[in-house]
Amino acid sequence: MQSNNLKSQFLLREGITYLNFGAYGACPKPIFERYQQYQLELEQEPVQFIAGNGMRYLKESREALAAYLNCLPNDVVYVTNPSYAVNIVAKSFPFKEGDEVLTTNLEYGACDRTWNYYCDKKGAKYLRQKIQFPLQSKEDFIEQFFKGLTSKTKMVFISHITSSTGLRLPVEEICAMAKQKGLLTFVDGAHAPGQIPVDLRILQADFYTGACHKWMLTPKGSSFLYVTKERQGMCDPLLISWGYNSATPSHSQFLDYHQTQGTRDFSAFLTIPAAIDFMNENNWPAVAENCRTITLSNADRFCKLLNAEPLCYNKEDFIFQLCSTVIKAKQPEQLHRLLFDKYKIEIPVMMLEGMTLLRYSIQAFNSQEDLDVLYYALKDIVEKTSLIEV
Amino acid sequence: MQSNNLKSQFLLREGITYLNFGAYGACPKPIFERYQQYQLELEQEPVQFIAGNGMRYLKESREALAAYLNCLPNDVVYVTNPSYAVNIVAKSFPFKEGDEVLTTNLEYGACDRTWNYYCDKKGAKYLRQKIQFPLQSKEDFIEQFFKGLTSKTKMVFISHITSSTGLRLPVEEICAMAKQKGLLTFVDGAHAPGQIPVDLRILQADFYTGACHKWMLTPKGSSFLYVTKERQGMCDPLLISWGYNSATPSHSQFLDYHQTQGTRDFSAFLTIPAAIDFMNENNWPAVAENCRTITLSNADRFCKLLNAEPLCYNKEDFIFQLCSTVIKAKQPEQLHRLLFDKYKIEIPVMMLEGMTLLRYSIQAFNSQEDLDVLYYALKDIVEKTSLIEV
Repeated sequence: MQSNNLKSQFLLREGITYLNFGAYGACPKPIFERYQQYQLELEQEPVQFIAGNGMRYLKESREALAAYLNCLPNDVVYVTNPSYAVNIVAKSFPFKEGDEVLTTNLEYGACDRTWNYYCDKKGAKYLRQKIQFPLQSKEDFIEQFFKGLTSKTKMVFISHITSSTGLRLPVEEICAMAKQKGLLTFVDGAHAPGQIPVDLRILQADFYTGACHKWMLTPKGSSFLYVTKERQGMCDPLLISWGYNSATPSHSQFLDYHQTQGTRDFSAFLTIPAAIDFMNENNWPAVAENCRTITLSNADRFCKLLNAEPLCYNKEDFIFQLCSTVIKAKQPEQLHRLLFDKYKIEIPVMMLEGMTLLRYSIQAFNSQEDLDVLYYALKDIVEKTSLIEV
Repeated sequence: MQSNNLKSQFLLREGITYLNFGAYGACPKPIFERYQQYQLELEQEPVQFIAGNGMRYLKESREALAAYLNCLPNDVVYVTNPSYAVNIVAKSFPFKEGDEVLTTNLEYGACDRTWNYYCDKKGAKYLRQKIQFPLQSKEDFIEQFFKGLTSKTKMVFISHITSSTGLRLPVEEICAMAKQKGLLTFVDGAHAPGQIPVDLRILQADFYTGACHKWMLTPKGSSFLYVTKERQGMCDPLLISWGYNSATPSHSQFLDYHQTQGTRDFSAFLTIPAAIDFMNENNWPAVAENCRTITLSNADRFCKLLNAEPLCYNKEDFIFQLCSTVIKAKQPEQLHRLLFDKYKIEIPVMMLEGMTLLRYSIQAFNSQEDLDVLYYALKDIVEKTSLIEV
């Protein structure tokens, strides 16, 4: 019932079974309205907004985000998306010839491309450690991951929740172990804040990026980069602007470097307090828990239907509001189109290391019924076409 | 009268004499509404918009912009702002030790910082040729500028209309001469399109950037980078994403590199056709001409009041809808605040090479009355305070 009330708060159009919240999120009405109000306020007096009130709202928004993530306001800065944050760090990282970044083979393709680009430029290596499925346990994952460690490893880069598999990785243990070994740590939390609690003080990663426009429900183009005080000096701006060698430096070079980015509409950054209020008012921990129950309780059913091994055992350690199932589809794009065109289901069919994965997201506007729609659509396709092998 | 009708089309709030259109533009209602409609359409089905309709709108918008600028649609790409475009080119430029970029000492500070940053990294030099005022003529400017040329010069970087002086520079002649000398040319047109006609086929610069969110009237964060076919291969993405080493390359690596930038709200890029329609429907050449007449006819009056030499003679060659006057103010920020707080005038007071400049912009919503308000406010300040020396 709560779910039905909440559904009316989203702008998603009727008639689509929307199981791809993970891709770009979806913004509830009150947050979206706040967004457009800021844009209107900007247009009513651009100079006073951009140099005045807007800056005050931005500071308040950073403070609210920092409280939500449990870090200091001046250690976090808004960026457009996690790719932007990864680009800042990879561009700036003081690689020496032969240095290695240890990561998994499950990372987001845009991030892989970024690290490869800058590692190639500097004679360093981006080492994508292969992870074998099904995962038996957290310990199994950790053991597999650190097999990629060498004497040249300088940094660990790893997803908090990976995009294509939807699995929540044991980043706490990995950061702690990496720290013991003297490595820097960078966690890509594109799918984390809003889906699972993120406590940066406990995690102690050197670098953390997260999207607000996914599970934190804000409009597109609002994400953040967190960097520990000790490592902030390492990060050059991705876009050099007035904040570099500033004529009027603020108290924080980190903010001067990464917040000052030329004229843009930064209203999306200002909506974070409204999003946090929305989550508080709607008892979001309970909403997320309810979504997770639906996500988890359907996982085996789709494995059975598709005759697939699960990606992991100990599901409770790995699965929250995203669940990916291996699907033997030779033409993933055609399957994706059919699911949308005929069955009106929005769900991604993704490729990862030779596997094809069907990933459903469960958000407040979803219900068991949505997964039933998916189930019977897939059953229909299995029975009537040769698009899926079982 | 036309001006009065048009004023009601803008969202600027009543009670402010807004003479700083040049800073961030100001967006008319029909264009702003289109902007927010696109954002709503995005939220109603993010996946279908971002991967589908939105891409189609984006292509149409690029085509409309290309027609407006007289270039090919695949030679121009939307970026957030001109600083972003300058960063792409400066980051990518294959400098050799000792190479020089020739520019003026009148360029935008964010661009100066960008070139200095990348030149420093590569042992190259960014040479800011000093321009002496008052300018006698176009020829005078060209002669002064090319005094900075050396055998090491590889590129010319120059504003079409400079931000702080508001002067329209003879970039056609400079590009033609630079080309003859075998130099690359990059024109910063942040203030050009919409204020003066921009014809990229005639100009033949290798690189050109312009803001749409200033004189083309679109919402903030919509600008473009144009690169000739021959030089596109030189430009790496500023933000490495899926379009770099794309798994599904399009017909244009230039677009793959610079258009694919991770999740963001790109609605501002989609408003260019609406802005061009708006200008067409309102006979913009006549509006701009009328604004220019007001701008020009007041220039001497402010010089006289402030006991200042003009920045140029042959005003018709240099001045369009922006006019800067030297003002002897020891505390420019205090003067700026007084003008806003007491007189409700929004106008910038800028520093350039030891000069203080007061710059007024005249747009469709302005009239002679606005400059009279400014005139009498300055007169009052001169008579009653010691903030301005005359």
